[in-house]
Amino acid sequence: MPYFDTASAAPLHPVARQALLASLDEGWADPARLHREGRRARMLLDAAREAAAEAVGCRPDELVFTPSGTRAVHAGISGALAGRRRVGDRLVVSAVEHSCVLHAGEAHAAAGGSMAEVPVGRSGAVDPEVFAAALAPGTALACLQSANHEVGTEQPVAEVAEACRAAGVPLLVDAAQSLGWGPVPQGWSLLAASAHKWGGPAGVGLLAVRKGVRFAPQGPADERESGRAPGFENLPAIVAAAASLRAVRAEAAAEAARLRALVDRIRARVPELVPDVEVVGDPVRRLPHLVTFSCLYVDGETLLHELDREGFSVSSGSSCTSSTLTPSHVLRAMGVLSEGNVRISLPSGTSEEDVDRFLAVLPGVVASVRDRLGAPESPAAAPGAAGTLVVDALGKRCPIPVIELAKVFGSVPVGGTVTVLSDDEAARLDIPAWCEMRGQEYVGEEPSPKGGTAYVVRRVS
Amino acid sequence: MPYFDTASAAPLHPVARQALLASLDEGWADPARLHREGRRARMLLDAAREAAAEAVGCRPDELVFTPSGTRAVHAGISGALAGRRRVGDRLVVSAVEHSCVLHAGEAHAAAGGSMAEVPVGRSGAVDPEVFAAALAPGTALACLQSANHEVGTEQPVAEVAEACRAAGVPLLVDAAQSLGWGPVPQGWSLLAASAHKWGGPAGVGLLAVRKGVRFAPQGPADERESGRAPGFENLPAIVAAAASLRAVRAEAAAEAARLRALVDRIRARVPELVPDVEVVGDPVRRLPHLVTFSCLYVDGETLLHELDREGFSVSSGSSCTSSTLTPSHVLRAMGVLSEGNVRISLPSGTSEEDVDRFLAVLPGVVASVRDRLGAPESPAAAPGAAGTLVVDALGKRCPIPVIELAKVFGSVPVGGTVTVLSDDEAARLDIPAWCEMRGQEYVGEEPSPKGGTAYVVRRVS
Repeated sequence: MPYFDTASAAPLHPVARQALLASLDEGWADPARLHREGRRARMLLDAAREAAAEAVGCRPDELVFTPSGTRAVHAGISGALAGRRRVGDRLVVSAVEHSCVLHAGEAHAAAGGSMAEVPVGRSGAVDPEVFAAALAPGTALACLQSANHEVGTEQPVAEVAEACRAAGVPLLVDAAQSLGWGPVPQGWSLLAASAHKWGGPAGVGLLAVRKGVRFAPQGPADERESGRAPGFENLPAIVAAAASLRAVRAEAAAEAARLRALVDRIRARVPELVPDVEVVGDPVRRLPHLVTFSCLYVDGETLLHELDREGFSVSSGSSCTSSTLTPSHVLRAMGVLSEGNVRISLPSGTSEEDVDRFLAVLPGVVASVRDRLGAPESPAAAPGAAGTLVVDALGKRCPIPVIELAKVFGSVPVGGTVTVLSDDEAARLDIPAWCEMRGQEYVGEEPSPKGGTAYVVRRVS
Repeated sequence: MPYFDTASAAPLHPVARQALLASLDEGWADPARLHREGRRARMLLDAAREAAAEAVGCRPDELVFTPSGTRAVHAGISGALAGRRRVGDRLVVSAVEHSCVLHAGEAHAAAGGSMAEVPVGRSGAVDPEVFAAALAPGTALACLQSANHEVGTEQPVAEVAEACRAAGVPLLVDAAQSLGWGPVPQGWSLLAASAHKWGGPAGVGLLAVRKGVRFAPQGPADERESGRAPGFENLPAIVAAAASLRAVRAEAAAEAARLRALVDRIRARVPELVPDVEVVGDPVRRLPHLVTFSCLYVDGETLLHELDREGFSVSSGSSCTSSTLTPSHVLRAMGVLSEGNVRISLPSGTSEEDVDRFLAVLPGVVASVRDRLGAPESPAAAPGAAGTLVVDALGKRCPIPVIELAKVFGSVPVGGTVTVLSDDEAARLDIPAWCEMRGQEYVGEEPSPKGGTAYVVRRVS
């Protein structure tokens, strides 16, 4: 049963499993104790730190282990902001950072600081010049992911690091999605990552802080992990995390080339096999194993369930798959379609056959979901008489508002408009995205007198 | 090789190991995902939460898993304080709480709040009436451990909980040392614990917050664990933690009775076998497996190393075994001797033979350490002519100042004084403790003109 969601979590790498088992026996004691069990635990911890630091490209005393990537990001951001409080309180982040970065920024803003989001282009990457321009005086910290977790786009880390260096601003790189594939380009000041993304166990993140970076750990004091990660060290898992990082790195170049070819095939074939699909993310500067596309007129949750029934585990940024019923902030920042969104992230060892089977199954699954929703098979042709038309989709969830739009669109003449009334968050993203895909004009939105929002689209062809 | 430091960390319980291995295969995926691997992970997480809640004695939706006991305490204290900010900013804790509680209180105080420490008696327990009196208006939260981690004394949780209820103050109980032995008496509002103390793996703590308790999680928002414990769930370890809690509880009554008898033997025999020893902690209201004693004229670190060479792993609260060269705050709060301190915490399954071998080895080890330090074998007898005497122990570390005091003490007449000059933190605790043990009068301390502190002792017999 192919599991295509390794960007969420990967099964434990065999090397990690071995290391975990061995260190359950050897590394359960408190490394702060003086007795032989404690000293043995300390040696294992030191060795794991050295191995991880080598893979990260830093000194062992610059790296601490945290309970998760999220906690590494939280500790890194709060510590760096506090360390540079005298410089200012401005935090600069890309708009497509992982939610743990954005949430840390929101907490900073709620406490009186400020956060600026650098927009991204349609590929999901920031423009280094735009990022550089955001580094206004008073900027205490900048954050940029190494690669995006939802669409796979690599960020121009080296260029942004250079801009940060020139502005005297430390750069925190969230390397969660990329560290297993290779080191982050030099120039970062802080780096965070998460072991369960590279085949290590859950319960381990890492935070590296370069010597010389002003850093003031926040929260209650603690003696462990240089005062940067309170609580008893999760030692067997740390040992396993370090061992698996080394193991996946040894296989990374060959496996990246193999998976990149499989992803290229998905990127090329999906739009040929499925009508009305938008493949998103940079086609070249991207993670080797990850590809995302969105399908017009499709309900993401139903699509996930249908693929699951066919044996494929994938993820989605559609609003209907989130607990808050809002589309992924990444897709929103990119301005791309969010309905019927599918993220595929291939684990190491994924076979060509599994990918081909996915490509064989997908078109039928999408078609059946569209059938059930009554999606238009192709743009309606006959122009109608009325110059304008209003579609009331209030109370209807993604993808219905876009489906209703598409159904009537052919009945207004060129030059006429369709106004869609909707109170679904996804419509704000998906109606403009539909216009982009169809070459029609998105006029804009206004409050609807009946509640919700009125989205206006003009037919230009 | 007997390991007598289970209060620091215990080897993994066989049931925990089995559960961990099984859930490495079944529970590595993201429980927030909709695919079958995610749903399976979610089911495991739900089942673990139910099992842990049953053992704690709360509802599953009142309990979240954290990365450690320390993180549970930090999150519990900060969330409860923030939730009752309008009531006041006073935090009341016992003076012998685990350092993670005190550090959380110090962070609260540094941010402008206030913290009051309730003193303990010589047994290490708080007096419920004294605790109740500390619950002044404006008290947002009170914290009391279920049992002390260094001396094993059980706290009067039920009585203090009743006082808190009467005062309308929520009580957070740090149950780290006792939860494996049984549930905490009802009446608590928040409860924190740590899995690696009950034979579960590292990387798992738990925090229970009763419905109706005002609670506002601090730090960046996160959807996982009801917003109270950010970051990817450490699921295999959580499953193992819950399984082992159930397993140790099933064995707890029988094993507690067995270990209690072994500890009773240590408590009785050590003072018979080793001269000048103070066994500390309540002899009756105590954890079944833990006993602590201090040996006059002994260097704790050397004692630990010698015991380690003999094959016994123990812990110590002596200043020389701490990175800050200060004696344990628990021993200090109790006012008992800190030099030559040994904490023994027996793991389940400890044999009578191991304990007897320890009792056979200890007297020789203590004697050899005392020999090397030149400790007086018994109080010097001949009274000297001078009425007062000054001993300069500046620059000398524990236990030397007390040894120097004891060496000369017999040479002053009854009614005369010895003044010890010392700049070692442990002297402040250990010189009064020596007076208590010897039935001599501790007059007090004053600044020493030569630096450090002058401790004055009067000979009364």
